[in-house]
Parts: sequence; C-alpha cells; structure tokens
Amino acid sequence: MTMLNKDMTLCISLSARPSNNGTRFHNFLYEELGLNWIYKAFAPTDLGQAIAGVRGLGIRGCAVSMPYKEDVIALVDRMDPSATVIDSVNTIVNDDGVLTAYNTDYSAIAQLIERNRLDPSVSVLLRGSGGMAKATAAAFRDAGFSRVTIAARNEQRGRGLADLYGFDWTADADAVTADIIVNITPLGMAGGADEHTVSFSEAHIAAASVVFDVVALPAETPLIAAGRAAGKTLITGAEVATLQALEQFVLYTGIRPSPEQVAAAEEFMRAQ
Amino acid sequence: MTMLNKDMTLCISLSARPSNNGTRFHNFLYEELGLNWIYKAFAPTDLGQAIAGVRGLGIRGCAVSMPYKEDVIALVDRMDPSATVIDSVNTIVNDDGVLTAYNTDYSAIAQLIERNRLDPSVSVLLRGSGGMAKATAAAFRDAGFSRVTIAARNEQRGRGLADLYGFDWTADADAVTADIIVNITPLGMAGGADEHTVSFSEAHIAAASVVFDVVALPAETPLIAAGRAAGKTLITGAEVATLQALEQFVLYTGIRPSPEQVAAAEEFMRAQ
Repeated sequence: MTMLNKDMTLCISLSARPSNNGTRFHNFLYEELGLNWIYKAFAPTDLGQAIAGVRGLGIRGCAVSMPYKEDVIALVDRMDPSATVIDSVNTIVNDDGVLTAYNTDYSAIAQLIERNRLDPSVSVLLRGSGGMAKATAAAFRDAGFSRVTIAARNEQRGRGLADLYGFDWTADADAVTADIIVNITPLGMAGGADEHTVSFSEAHIAAASVVFDVVALPAETPLIAAGRAAGKTLITGAEVATLQALEQFVLYTGIRPSPEQVAAAEEFMRAQ
Repeated sequence: MTMLNKDMTLCISLSARPSNNGTRFHNFLYEELGLNWIYKAFAPTDLGQAIAGVRGLGIRGCAVSMPYKEDVIALVDRMDPSATVIDSVNTIVNDDGVLTAYNTDYSAIAQLIERNRLDPSVSVLLRGSGGMAKATAAAFRDAGFSRVTIAARNEQRGRGLADLYGFDWTADADAVTADIIVNITPLGMAGGADEHTVSFSEAHIAAASVVFDVVALPAETPLIAAGRAAGKTLITGAEVATLQALEQFVLYTGIRPSPEQVAAAEEFMRAQ
C-alpha cells in the first residue's frame, strides 16, 4: 500500500517529453533515506502557469528540461552562477516562494572533468551546438581548456557557441581530431533515428585518449562501446545524468546520499 | 517500493489546514482499482497561483476546502448547478484546461436525504450558518422541505441564510424542536474546544425522529452517540464525508467503485 500522506514535500520535473528517470531516482532516495517526500514528472500545458503552480502549491524543487530551459529564466527570482554562465536552467529551488535557478548539467560536467583529472592543456573536440553543448563548452572553458573545437553543421549556432567561449568552430567534424572527444548530439540515443550510429569516426576514437558521450540512454552508447573496445578513458552520459540528478537531490533536500545509496538509486532508475 | 512513475495522473486538494482523509481515501481506491493515479493534499500559499498550477501542470482534479470555497469561483471556467445553487465550490474537474466547479457536499447531503427517505412535510431544525449550513439548507429546500428553521446566534448570517431559502430563523436553538435536527456547527468535532459538547439538548433529541450530524470526525460524535442511545434514525457526518469524496472520485476518474471498495477505502481513511 502506497502510504502517501498530506505532509509529503513535492518535487517535480517539467519537460515536453518526460522520462521516468527523475521520478525513479528521486523517489528511490526519498524512500531509502526515510524522507516524507514525493517526486513526479509533468509535461506542462503552459510553462508560466506551471511555475505559478510551483509557487502557489509550495512545490520544493523543479527540474526543467527541453524545451523550457531558457524560457524559464524570466519566471524565476534568482539565478545561481551555474545557470547564469550558460543562460540555461535545469533546476529550480523554491525557498518559501523565492525561486532560485541552477544548472546541474553544468555542475555535473565540471565535476566529471575534475574527477577524471582531464588535462586542460590537451585538445578537445565537442560535437554539437544545443543547450547541453553550451553547458559542456562552458565547463571545459571554466576548467581552463583553451584548445577546443566545436563541430556543428549549423554555422550560426556552432560558430556562435565557439565565439562565446573563444573556441574554434568547424562544420566538418572529420577535419579535426583531438585528445578528448565529446559527443553532445543525439547520435546513439536509444529510440532515436540514429540509435546505432557511432557519433565519432574510427579515426577520431583512435586519436583520442578520452571518449566522453553526453547521451545518457543507453548507458553503453555505440560511442562508449567503441571507446571501451579501443581501451580509452570513458566518461558516460549516464554518469552526467546521475550526477546532475544527485546535485538536484542535494539542492532540494540539503542531504547528500552516500555513494552506495546513489549507486542503488541509479540501478533502480535504469531497471525500467 | 513506491512505484511512482511519470505517467501518473495527479489529483490534489487545496485547504488551509489539510487533513489526511482525501489523500488516504483516493489513493486507496486508485490502488484498489489499479489506476495509475496519485492524490496529494496541499496548503497553498496563493490560491490564484495554485489554480494556475492546476491548469499548467494538467492536474486532473482538485478538492477545495476552507477558506477557498468561494474565492475559487472567480478562477474556474464553468459552474455546475451543484456549486451555483450555494455559490460554493468544493471540487474542480480539469478537462484539457477547462475547469468545471462542483459542490459534492451539496450532492452528498441531497443523496442522504433521499436514501433515508426523509419526509419533506416534517419540520427541520438546522443549527449553523457557515458554508456547510448553506449546502445543507439548499439540499433540504431542493428536496421539497419548507418547514425549516435555521438556528444561529449570528443574526446577519442566520437570517440571511433563512431568507435565501424562505426558511425561519431563530437565535435561540432551544426555543424550537423539530422532527429532523441537523448539527452544522463545529460542536462535537474531534480536537475542537467543544469536542465533548452534544450539539442539541436532550429535549431536542427526545422530540426528534432523525438526528443528523454533519461533523465527520469522530464518526461517532457526542450528538450521534446521544441519538443512538435514544433509538433515533441517524445520519452521520462520516457518511457525508465519504459520499462527497466518492462523488469527487467519480467526477475525476469516471469510475464508480463498488460499495465494498468504498467501505474498504473509508476504513483505510479512518485508520490513521
């Protein structure tokens, strides 16, 4: 019997196409830690009204996904530097009606760069030009990387992103190799049109020492599988997803679960 | 493990001081009927923003309690006659963004008058002048009762309510006896200052054939206990509460649970 009760604190997500990941990850940890909290994903019909609901219903935390990450900026009260640096929000914390926006994608990528002790003097090739590419580029810039190329067919977005951080731009990913290659396109994403596509060439992978895929589903993308077969250092989108969700959890609850609890929540999240 | 998921339909309640009754009643029936639904009580910080949230988050149903039953009228799109007749809303149904307001307290009392085959030619004494008294008076009026006296110390509210339905008013409940006596004050309510007070005198009870208490908690109020001891026909606030919650459930889900399922949900609701 689900022992739901009136006193539960609610956290939610807002996304045009919600996944079950957040709902499973957060609820697992609430139960594990004995918190009287509940988490539920929403596909809002109107962003402004949904954020009004966050205020009016006293919803404690709110994850923000595509396509709301930029539009929501006008609706919050404060911007944390993690959101300001990329003009993109994926997390809102409600402190008694004051909404503060964060970007835990940025924080998660920054942490993974640090944890893996990536050397800022080496070359980096970032493939992609969307919101997540911006978070990734900013995290590399802020970690001291300067030899970075953005590969994106869309010149306006690709060059714009490169210019923002003082990086190079190329329309042709195959024209450049690098020590660290990062896929930030949907190539290799489960359920997508290109789910079996390896997002970098064999030459890219051979020339790289670090293979980093921001695609989170599946955990073992074609790129990660190819990088693993080639014996490269791997950073997965699954790690990014878990880490950013964990940072949301900490922002909402003020509690940092143990690594074992996080691993169990991640396993539960993936066992769908 | 609470198997919450992104696709769950949410229903909520809005009340300054939520109880666990709705949360337990509705969630029990969702589980019993295998519905992927969830119910949670809220104490909103701002009614307008909360109703915006009902629209923006696509919340399917919303119970409305004190002190929002009248203020919410301006925020909905349509009024069902059950709400119009007493200018009071306790239920909102969201059909793809169109909010329709109902009053299931009124419907529940009307059903109990009918089920108990109360005779409209007999005399009725209603004690109280709040929103629930209005629902009760309207239900008696609409069932054809005309020999009705409103007993309320506050002349403006008591006389106003009586005038609205063509009933009599008295400031002194003890001056009148009747065949049907109905308590619609907080007298006898669990946790209240007057929780041990029998809301009518021994003379009232002796003269009555039907004793009706709208107070729902405890199920056996001092008045119901006294009426039971005196062998009277009893109608309890617990019946009103269950019936109005059931009508909300039917409005939200379109499903009418069996009497056995309702009885089990009521038992679960009370086992707090």
